[in-house]
Formats: sequence, structure tokens, C-alpha cells
Amino acid sequence: MGIYPPSLGRLIEQFSKFPGIGQKSAERLALYALRSPKELAEGLAQSLLEVKEKIRFCSICFNLTDKDPCPICTDQRRANGSLCVVEGPGDQLAIEKSGAFKGRYHVLQGVLSPLDGIGVEDLRIAELMSRLRNETIKEVILAINPTVEGEATVSYLADMLRGKDVIVTRIALGIPLGGDLKYIDSMTLKRSIDNRSSCAS
Amino acid sequence: MGIYPPSLGRLIEQFSKFPGIGQKSAERLALYALRSPKELAEGLAQSLLEVKEKIRFCSICFNLTDKDPCPICTDQRRANGSLCVVEGPGDQLAIEKSGAFKGRYHVLQGVLSPLDGIGVEDLRIAELMSRLRNETIKEVILAINPTVEGEATVSYLADMLRGKDVIVTRIALGIPLGGDLKYIDSMTLKRSIDNRSSCAS
Repeated sequence: MGIYPPSLGRLIEQFSKFPGIGQKSAERLALYALRSPKELAEGLAQSLLEVKEKIRFCSICFNLTDKDPCPICTDQRRANGSLCVVEGPGDQLAIEKSGAFKGRYHVLQGVLSPLDGIGVEDLRIAELMSRLRNETIKEVILAINPTVEGEATVSYLADMLRGKDVIVTRIALGIPLGGDLKYIDSMTLKRSIDNRSSCAS
Repeated sequence: MGIYPPSLGRLIEQFSKFPGIGQKSAERLALYALRSPKELAEGLAQSLLEVKEKIRFCSICFNLTDKDPCPICTDQRRANGSLCVVEGPGDQLAIEKSGAFKGRYHVLQGVLSPLDGIGVEDLRIAELMSRLRNETIKEVILAINPTVEGEATVSYLADMLRGKDVIVTRIALGIPLGGDLKYIDSMTLKRSIDNRSSCAS
């Protein structure tokens, strides 16, 4: 366009390749990087390079890690017999932050999606089955996002795990805390009524 | 927190230092950088370093530039006697993108703000006066944001320029295109009524 100095234009273009960052936001970020002390831009640049160099997938749970195997897979206190199966690293982070789970994880690295050409062999399902044979696992918790593809993956995994000596559960679907029945979609509402729990305890 | 691998944690922290990027957005950007080809992260890292190294202020108009003086200050076709005074480089970019102005710019690099300790000597006002003496300037257009500090700066500059052999104008204040009178603040509405223009022409 010739409006920006070329190197500034390139920085704006690079920022705008990221998700949720449009032209305007990219401009704002680039101008902020320019205005700020050198350390800010250099710090981000260095972290970007470092992360691409250091981060890999854990060879056991396929989560992101600096060290292989990852700290959770090597922590004996977390070998409590519970295995939480998630779709991607972001889901694992969300559960870990909630502090609600103290066992180990298995990251599928996707869900079954025939339309996108993602089949059973593209996910870490064979590795999950091998862990069930080699580790002492009492319960598999399916914490997969309730999308169409996620539901199909849950069904597939539940079928695969049937007959194995392991309890298979899935996380509850229902109204989120602070939600309002008026604004909840009817499929979620139906689920939350079907899955109602006793108030006795 | 020990939830992220350390290098990923550092990248999230670096992203979250930028304006409008909170913890959640920083996580999303960092995970995206991880998931994407190496070129994306390296491209952004390189642009960040390049911009901090190459971009400087034009010694004539104090806008951001790769070359000093900047391409606008060296372009003879833009020496049309009009000088547009703006607050910062972002404002200059916005005007340049609109294509509505074909003269040269002067970037004040801020507005008068006694509460923040920004006075006349912190802005590029002396340099503006020196340009008025040395260049052939017929009109000074004050395109300063209509904030409290911006208005004070407009008044100050209008006083300074009074008596010089130059036309001083400011950009129109009023309802933005597509705006709705119902939702416009009353100060803007008052301005747009006070500054009404004839429909004859």
C-alpha cells in the first residue's frame, strides 16, 4: 500500500496472520511494539523462537511439553488410576487450571471428522489402548468437547473401551454456572433435564 | 503456576503484555503459534526485531519511517502548501488511508496534558513553528483528536498561529457517517448543530 514504512507493514502483516487479530488490531499491536521499550519486542521475539524450538509432544500422553516425558507423566502422585482423555492441549490446560483433576491425561490431538478426512488412525487412539494395557488404569474420563464430531468420538471410544476392565465416564453436560435457562439452547436444556441428579445427598 | 511448560508460559506472558490481549487471548495466540508452521512464529519474531531496529522518527515531520527524511517529506508532489498537524503516527496512518489529504504532515507526538506532566516543550511545537518559517505553507489543518487534552492543544496552537501569514483550520466535528442521532452523545450533537453547513451548494 505504501502507507506504512515497509518494515512496519511487514510487522502488521505478521500480526494479522494470528487468529482473532484483524488489520486494525495488528496495527495497534505493531504501533505498541514500536512505542514500547526494546525489551518488549525482543522478549516476544525470543519467546516465539524458543517455544518453537523447545516444545514437543510428550511421548506418553501427547500433551505439549518442554521435557519428554512431561512432568505430569513422570509425577508418581498423579498415577492414581484416573486417565482423562481430551481433544487438544488447550482443553488439558483448562482442566489443569480448574484444579478438579489429579490424575493423568491423554491428548487425542483432534476428534473424528470424516468430512475433514480425520479418521481413527489420525488420532492417538492406538496409543490410548496401549496405555490401558501397560498402565494401571481404573477409570477413563472422556472430557471431549460436546460438538457433533466430539460426540461421535465419545461414542467410538466408549465402544472401543466396552468389555475392557475399566470404568468409562464422561464429563457432565448441562447448564453452565451463572447461565440463564431463558438463553440456553434447547439441546443443552434437554440434556440437563435428562441428566438431572438427586438433591438428597 | 507450573501448569504450562516453562517456555510456553513465557510466550503467553509476553503476548499478554500487549494492549487488548488478556490471559485467554494470549493462550490462544501462543497455542496457535505452536500449532502453525515454524515460518509463522519466525516471521513475527523477525519482523519485531526488524521494526525496532529500522523504524525511527522523520527529522522533518516526526512521523515513523524507515528512511530519514520520510518518503512524504521528500515527495515534491506533496509540497502543495498544506500541512496537517496530528497527534501521533496512528492518526497520520488513518488520514493517509482515507486518501483525503495530499499535503504533508507534522506529528506532534502527543497533546498537552498538564496532569500527565506533558507540556509545550514535550511536543514538536517548536519544530512546527520552524517549518512555518522555512517551508512554503499556506494552510495548517489541525487534525487533533477532540478529547479534552486535544481541544486544549488545538486552542494553544490556534493562539500560536494567529497573526502568522497562514490559514489555520481544523477538521469538522459532528455525527459520523452511519451514526444515529438517538445514540450520539449530546456534546457531539450540539457541535454538529452549531457547525451545520448550507445545503445550497
